[in-house]
Amino acid sequence: MKFSSKILEELVDSLSALPSIGKKTALRLALHIIQHGEDKSEPIIQSLSNLTNLKTCKQCHNFSDHELCHICTDPVRRKSTLCVVESVVDVMAIEDTDQFNGVFHVLGGVINPLEGIGPDELNIDSLIERTASDEIEEVIMAISPTIEGETTIYYLSKQLGPNNVKISQIARGVSFGGELEYADALTLGRSIHSRTPYNISSE
Amino acid sequence: MKFSSKILEELVDSLSALPSIGKKTALRLALHIIQHGEDKSEPIIQSLSNLTNLKTCKQCHNFSDHELCHICTDPVRRKSTLCVVESVVDVMAIEDTDQFNGVFHVLGGVINPLEGIGPDELNIDSLIERTASDEIEEVIMAISPTIEGETTIYYLSKQLGPNNVKISQIARGVSFGGELEYADALTLGRSIHSRTPYNISSE
Repeated sequence: MKFSSKILEELVDSLSALPSIGKKTALRLALHIIQHGEDKSEPIIQSLSNLTNLKTCKQCHNFSDHELCHICTDPVRRKSTLCVVESVVDVMAIEDTDQFNGVFHVLGGVINPLEGIGPDELNIDSLIERTASDEIEEVIMAISPTIEGETTIYYLSKQLGPNNVKISQIARGVSFGGELEYADALTLGRSIHSRTPYNISSE
Repeated sequence: MKFSSKILEELVDSLSALPSIGKKTALRLALHIIQHGEDKSEPIIQSLSNLTNLKTCKQCHNFSDHELCHICTDPVRRKSTLCVVESVVDVMAIEDTDQFNGVFHVLGGVINPLEGIGPDELNIDSLIERTASDEIEEVIMAISPTIEGETTIYYLSKQLGPNNVKISQIARGVSFGGELEYADALTLGRSIHSRTPYNISSE
């Protein structure tokens, strides 16, 4: 790509350094920004500059604008139920369901020896500390059902054992609205194995 | 989407205001930038801030860092051949072919009455002025073969008529490497109509 302007070229380069943005997309974005002037560029400059003020919650390691995030400080939240997730995105996904009223703990990943991620790289010490307090009664493992996820759940449950809390994991089975013939064999097999009693008035 | 941080939310909002970037993609980009810190955010902030210095070439209306762009000031370029294009992106596309050694004129669009774009909205006056000089011998219309493009070429050739320059347009026909059965009927029909003599030594 031959640019007539170094300024344009630098913008395209900086945008195409982002994941899933190629040179052509970056050029299209750059031209769009140029066309709309400061209306488009100012908010991006401002919000990127503000990132230096982004904190992680001291307690749950979720992103926050303050020392403690709004979930940890919310008086309505049930502090006795702790949901352990891999990442900040998972907190957002669970919050979007409106089905959970407890608090979170963000691990920052899962144990993955092949990528050099051991327990020390994750927020596990602080999790053990938190669950050691009397306040927490149940720890829900909301971790992806992958080999690394399962390993992490196993490791965590071993570590949390002495703290005498109830440990549970999110239900696994066939997706709602999913068709049986398209479910993978492992999911289908396990969902038969972990079948639940049907209660005619439960739905 | 429920954000735990206003700072993160603002970044996602500003990124998702760009074309073809949805909320989910914006979130992924934002998390990537946060993960890599200032290494990723600084170049984008810098290059967006620099946009205020971006100029358009006084002569050809291409983007430029100076009053005149590097193509207009290049002594090796043949100033007698002028290629008229719709946009800056078309200049880049033609430059990438390495097949053109003349200079450009960027119209800034094509005549499109339905969208309220008439000749006055385009860089046509300056084109007529340029071609009125003795220097320019040929004007090549490198404009998309759409109805609006054809209208624009017709209008321009009428306007440039008194200036006594040779007017040509880029060749149209079946794409190189393309298969005849997949060419659209209009292109194929016209390419038969405008067939060129086959010269055994021409390739």
